[in-house]
Amino acid sequence: MTARRSSCIVLGGGGFLGVNLCRRLASAGHRVRAFGRRCLFPEALDQVEWYQGDFCDATALAAAIETYEIVFHLLHATTPQSANLDMAGDLQQNVVSTLALLDISRRLGVKRIVFVSSGGTIYGSCKQIPTLETAPTEPITAYGVGKLAIEKYLAMYEHHYGLQHRILRVANPFGPFQVPIKNQGVIAALISRAIKNETIEIWGDGSVVRDYIFVDDVIAALQSVMSDQSDMRIFNIGSGCGRSLLEVIGSIETLLNMELKIEWRRSRPVDVPVSILSIERAKTVLGWAPSTPFKVGLQRTLDWWKSGK
Amino acid sequence: MTARRSSCIVLGGGGFLGVNLCRRLASAGHRVRAFGRRCLFPEALDQVEWYQGDFCDATALAAAIETYEIVFHLLHATTPQSANLDMAGDLQQNVVSTLALLDISRRLGVKRIVFVSSGGTIYGSCKQIPTLETAPTEPITAYGVGKLAIEKYLAMYEHHYGLQHRILRVANPFGPFQVPIKNQGVIAALISRAIKNETIEIWGDGSVVRDYIFVDDVIAALQSVMSDQSDMRIFNIGSGCGRSLLEVIGSIETLLNMELKIEWRRSRPVDVPVSILSIERAKTVLGWAPSTPFKVGLQRTLDWWKSGK
Repeated sequence: MTARRSSCIVLGGGGFLGVNLCRRLASAGHRVRAFGRRCLFPEALDQVEWYQGDFCDATALAAAIETYEIVFHLLHATTPQSANLDMAGDLQQNVVSTLALLDISRRLGVKRIVFVSSGGTIYGSCKQIPTLETAPTEPITAYGVGKLAIEKYLAMYEHHYGLQHRILRVANPFGPFQVPIKNQGVIAALISRAIKNETIEIWGDGSVVRDYIFVDDVIAALQSVMSDQSDMRIFNIGSGCGRSLLEVIGSIETLLNMELKIEWRRSRPVDVPVSILSIERAKTVLGWAPSTPFKVGLQRTLDWWKSGK
Repeated sequence: MTARRSSCIVLGGGGFLGVNLCRRLASAGHRVRAFGRRCLFPEALDQVEWYQGDFCDATALAAAIETYEIVFHLLHATTPQSANLDMAGDLQQNVVSTLALLDISRRLGVKRIVFVSSGGTIYGSCKQIPTLETAPTEPITAYGVGKLAIEKYLAMYEHHYGLQHRILRVANPFGPFQVPIKNQGVIAALISRAIKNETIEIWGDGSVVRDYIFVDDVIAALQSVMSDQSDMRIFNIGSGCGRSLLEVIGSIETLLNMELKIEWRRSRPVDVPVSILSIERAKTVLGWAPSTPFKVGLQRTLDWWKSGK
């Protein structure tokens, strides 16, 4: 957590991580602007300035960034599923737009860019579990390749122009303000269906193992890299533990004291079987650690859904 | 070298490596088509079918590839110097066009794509010298990031669609048919100026160390991956030895028995100080090894220039 107050712009401030981050930054006394095409929860951002704009529109982006010191880049226009359907479009919307962002940030004197990368897709079917930041990056989705290319451009910009950056490779975050859109957020999908007693489609047989992390812990990591002075640039952010989807379903069933209605579908080729991140670097270098036990996070998520959002 | 005859299309068949490759493939009895915007040496390709086309034009590309089994992808529209000036354009011309190529190749049933990547830029300022294929890839040029992104998409296409690929990360090739355009090919630049008794501009102080490899050895490596059945996908191709630019200048001066006229300029930020590739993997797996001593290669290059091309 930073001692001093900064001015921060959160690109993708209207999304799941974005809303959570903006709220936390505002409570910590930072000047915060949220940038995005739309905000799903405007009332949640009452302490934050909302700036409507499209990431692909460089003029809007430059106007939004203005004099802000720290840029949180949380935007990604595609999902691991959708990116493979139009790889050129994925590259255009995410990577080319980020190049424009880098150029704008450099011109406007931005101090630091914090980028949320993908701990779940960037390594591919990694043989090393839990996976270190130094593991080979062999994504099997265009989504992962795009994230990787952005990481490389960030490093290049710091090398040539001194534009500071930090990259968080975030595992599978869950929590309040996550809504099940575009096939993302399996916990949000499970809970939202369960409380309406609806059936949910699940791809695979429930054996896929993921590293689920409660959103508050991700936000704490994002805050801590605002002022990190180490020579590290990339940090895995996860719980450090793996849970199968069947275990997650079991936990939700226990909390709700009901059986979920699930329709099982054939697994998707973009899903790697196991993804668990090693978080030793973030622990050692940032002094950060996840502090919310899985079941506590699940209960808070459930409470949020039950509160009618 | 492959035992059977194949049909091969060489994208970038009119360029330095392309002309050398097409000639060798044709002599080996393969059916060869060269694809490109222009051919600098049409008479050199008299045994080869020339197909004029722009790599960015997917329709032309699909028509050119037709029933060819093996695609050699040697095209790159930018240089390490020019790519950083327009990174979005670099991405568009090279990476987006390659995505179209992959899609076309998959649809047309291409058996294998052989891609020439960049041994000199993909690793960045690597601390490990000589550099193994498993070293971190931290390019400091958009050129290197583009090459890396293409490598990742190739791996993804093989993973999802079974489209075979091999990648050669080639060091600094030199030899006949290399002409000094777009600031590439320092040996070609030195020799061409020297025999006209002209002054040449050199960036830096001559201390940069590179791994120069004679073109015939690169072509032999390209031939050997046509039929490689190993589970390796990426091979460094270099001489395995480093030479400073001053040493190269000295060798040319000795061969020509004259002093070169050089105008020294400030070094460029895209130049890493040392680049030497470890070629153990190619030796072990492909049974390939460079066989042309540096000075022999230099003499052959000189002979080619003196022959009036």
